[in-house]
Amino acid sequence: MSYSGYYNPSPSAPPLPEPQSQPNHTYSYQSMPSFPPGTHPEVIRSFQMVDLDRSGFIDAKELQQALNTGYQKFSLRTIRLLMLQFMNPNHPFRTGPKEFAELWSCLGQWHAIFERFDSDRSGKIDATELRDALYSLGFAIPPSVLQLLISKYDDQSGRRVELSFDSFVECGMIVMGLTEKFKEKDTGYTGSATLSYETFMTMVIPFLVVE
Amino acid sequence: MSYSGYYNPSPSAPPLPEPQSQPNHTYSYQSMPSFPPGTHPEVIRSFQMVDLDRSGFIDAKELQQALNTGYQKFSLRTIRLLMLQFMNPNHPFRTGPKEFAELWSCLGQWHAIFERFDSDRSGKIDATELRDALYSLGFAIPPSVLQLLISKYDDQSGRRVELSFDSFVECGMIVMGLTEKFKEKDTGYTGSATLSYETFMTMVIPFLVVE
Repeated sequence: MSYSGYYNPSPSAPPLPEPQSQPNHTYSYQSMPSFPPGTHPEVIRSFQMVDLDRSGFIDAKELQQALNTGYQKFSLRTIRLLMLQFMNPNHPFRTGPKEFAELWSCLGQWHAIFERFDSDRSGKIDATELRDALYSLGFAIPPSVLQLLISKYDDQSGRRVELSFDSFVECGMIVMGLTEKFKEKDTGYTGSATLSYETFMTMVIPFLVVE
Repeated sequence: MSYSGYYNPSPSAPPLPEPQSQPNHTYSYQSMPSFPPGTHPEVIRSFQMVDLDRSGFIDAKELQQALNTGYQKFSLRTIRLLMLQFMNPNHPFRTGPKEFAELWSCLGQWHAIFERFDSDRSGKIDATELRDALYSLGFAIPPSVLQLLISKYDDQSGRRVELSFDSFVECGMIVMGLTEKFKEKDTGYTGSATLSYETFMTMVIPFLVVE
């Protein structure tokens, strides 16, 4: 899937202006010129607000705070899965401007999809809507996988399982991340892959060691 | 590996008596006769103390409390990995007496291994000691896997990474669980396995959906 494009991320706010093809010098990050061209000033501002030491990199708690301005307060677990997906190979534990801009844009797309499937605007989607939303994002997951994913959110009360946007992003990052890892080993898209024990373990453990 | 055998789990307490081959009627669980024969009364008592409704099954928080009497307060994440490893197929979200007895016994073995490698009795082991301890438990993990495992506990301060017993059990349950899943698909022990996308996802996601 593509992370390009720009969506208004905040449903309650008026639409943001279109991204500019030239950097806006009022907001551009003078000391760290590595935001991609055309990054929306709001995105740059959200990053700058939390990058107090102007290092050009932010940690998990700072990312949580930065996304809070445009989206909502995500759980630290979702934040760490986002950082894993949008990882700077040289700084695996921190997020730089390029990754932040990609991540923000991806969340905008996912929020639009989430809203489309949350037809009654309750802020929650059920298992079938999760499946359809993931399908819209390009992931066709088997029923067994859907069942395992939603089992986490089942409080055993017998009520229908429903997911918030935070949980939707958490599920989505798990599916997207594992699917991409699998596709790297199934380059012919045959639907199966032969993995050594070491390959299997190193593919999977990064997802497990996020809190 | 075998979960049989019995070890004194609490290093500060005097050694517990040997398990009895006949159930001790004072402590045997009259209303729920499913503890394996020879289960130590201390184990039965720890379970009974938290199974207040006498349903014969305990949830994650109750398990955390039950293990606190014999071991220590484990994180809920470690508790959920233990529950996943020692799962009753009919009650996947709760732990019954049989699983509890196996789990308690396994923790005793792991505690003995942990203490053997914690040579200075600091309550912590480092990466090399983790590798050697896992090897003692029957798991030979490649350096790349060890590196990924300990990266979780690296606070980026430059100090040597050290793991508590709780973290050791967490790592151990991840390695043991994933290795067992892999071996189920590599029945000839060739060191590699061919997995379909669905198989790969359903093998891995249960480990990810624990908190």
